[in-house]
Amino acid sequence: MILPHAFDYAGTAVFAVSAVLAAGRKQLDLLGAVIIALVTSTGGGTLRDLLLNRTPFWFTDTGYLVTILVVACTTVLVLRWRHPSERLLEIADAVGVALFSISGARIAEAAGLPGLIVVVLATITGTFGGLLRDVLCNEIPLLLRPGTIYGVVVIAGATLYVVLQSLGVSRDIAALAGMLLIASLRMVAIARN
Amino acid sequence: MILPHAFDYAGTAVFAVSAVLAAGRKQLDLLGAVIIALVTSTGGGTLRDLLLNRTPFWFTDTGYLVTILVVACTTVLVLRWRHPSERLLEIADAVGVALFSISGARIAEAAGLPGLIVVVLATITGTFGGLLRDVLCNEIPLLLRPGTIYGVVVIAGATLYVVLQSLGVSRDIAALAGMLLIASLRMVAIARN
Amino acid sequence: MILPHAFDYAGTAVFAVSAVLAAGRKQLDLLGAVIIALVTSTGGGTLRDLLLNRTPFWFTDTGYLVTILVVACTTVLVLRWRHPSERLLEIADAVGVALFSISGARIAEAAGLPGLIVVVLATITGTFGGLLRDVLCNEIPLLLRPGTIYGVVVIAGATLYVVLQSLGVSRDIAALAGMLLIASLRMVAIARN
Repeated sequence: MILPHAFDYAGTAVFAVSAVLAAGRKQLDLLGAVIIALVTSTGGGTLRDLLLNRTPFWFTDTGYLVTILVVACTTVLVLRWRHPSERLLEIADAVGVALFSISGARIAEAAGLPGLIVVVLATITGTFGGLLRDVLCNEIPLLLRPGTIYGVVVIAGATLYVVLQSLGVSRDIAALAGMLLIASLRMVAIARN
Repeated sequence: MILPHAFDYAGTAVFAVSAVLAAGRKQLDLLGAVIIALVTSTGGGTLRDLLLNRTPFWFTDTGYLVTILVVACTTVLVLRWRHPSERLLEIADAVGVALFSISGARIAEAAGLPGLIVVVLATITGTFGGLLRDVLCNEIPLLLRPGTIYGVVVIAGATLYVVLQSLGVSRDIAALAGMLLIASLRMVAIARN
Repeated sequence: MILPHAFDYAGTAVFAVSAVLAAGRKQLDLLGAVIIALVTSTGGGTLRDLLLNRTPFWFTDTGYLVTILVVACTTVLVLRWRHPSERLLEIADAVGVALFSISGARIAEAAGLPGLIVVVLATITGTFGGLLRDVLCNEIPLLLRPGTIYGVVVIAGATLYVVLQSLGVSRDIAALAGMLLIASLRMVAIARN
């Protein structure tokens, strides 16, 4: 897969924006928004790395933290002028979840873990940050609320990634298919709401 | 101790059932219930393994996740026909906590840690999953609420396990005594409420 | 730095007192108060140690847990006679945060991490315990609430510690300066409220 880092950075930036919006709804100030952004964007990958006994990904490449800080502060400033289209953001979030989940699946796979664990770690990477965001904002996590197919979508995409590879499809094609499934199912869900 | 794995599986299944019931009270749907079940059943053992720098127990034996998935889905289905006796469930939960706590104590002991740390890790293994369940359901954890002797019971059982061994009692007998103390104290507490 | 352990113990004790007071406001009983005290006092350092793949600091020196248990129980007893001055406690808390944060910065630095990560780990060490305390008490964390400069202060102190060293100031002097900045800024904030 070409440019996996560019994808990771894109997912990180999108999650930072969604976190600042959530913090705004709770009337947190700049620092509260930045902390929520850091936790939301790094939470999933950090729990994955702790479980896999890896060095947290943001230790080895400080670019992630810098990206989150810059994006979060910029978002806070922009929000004073105008509010972004809710629709645009949900689409960006769909892409972010797709990128993070399959990136988590690839890392779990590289550790030689069985398919079921790969799917669980992909789901953790894609959703745990948002779950932390909701717990810190003192709400029942979006992931758990009835009617949202958030979690199912991630599990479906990660499973497709694992199953395609077991059928002989190359890793990069399987990753692309998994990401497309997650992003498109999310967008269908958004369009129907 | 013969069949420690059978005990672990039994504890896992019981916690999954209790989690689905808690999710039902919050009107979460199937996926929400399954996620709460996964977190409740694996949370305590996972934090113990992270602290001990061990590979999470559910990485090496996927039977745990399969058990939780099957039990959680079955429970959701059964709940459509009839509700289980609250009393029966509390008894099952008492047995689950007893099994998990002493299993945690044994693993901490195998790592050569002092008695106080063994008791703390036993308490974490037995209670952290339920604490996460309550935090995700946006409630003050049962473990912390006044009048519940949940935590004291686990600490007492783990302490008995450590003290008996220091008095020369064999590990298996001490484990049995610790588990019996936890299960029976919980049942006394349930009977009195 | 002479007596870093004495500082760590002091910070631990102060956090245990603040946790028991928070538990009292939520009408938790003795056990709830002790558990909140354990989580608040050890939470920041434990997450730091997990991220750095170190053995949790309270495994190797059981003195921390004993200190927390003794201080928490004593505080519960004392609270029956009289309530401590709120002002006195906030000052003690300011000192505790200062000690913990810079202690976290020193450990991160010893692991050879870049300055930005040192500041993040100092902030985690100084604030994560209090954040857990607020989540367990089912409140939006103090750290995130608007108007509190809690987090900014810790970041400023840790940054000063890193910057002074990069300018050639000795580690111990830089640590002292960082701690003084955190403690004094907190006290100014307290005095103005």
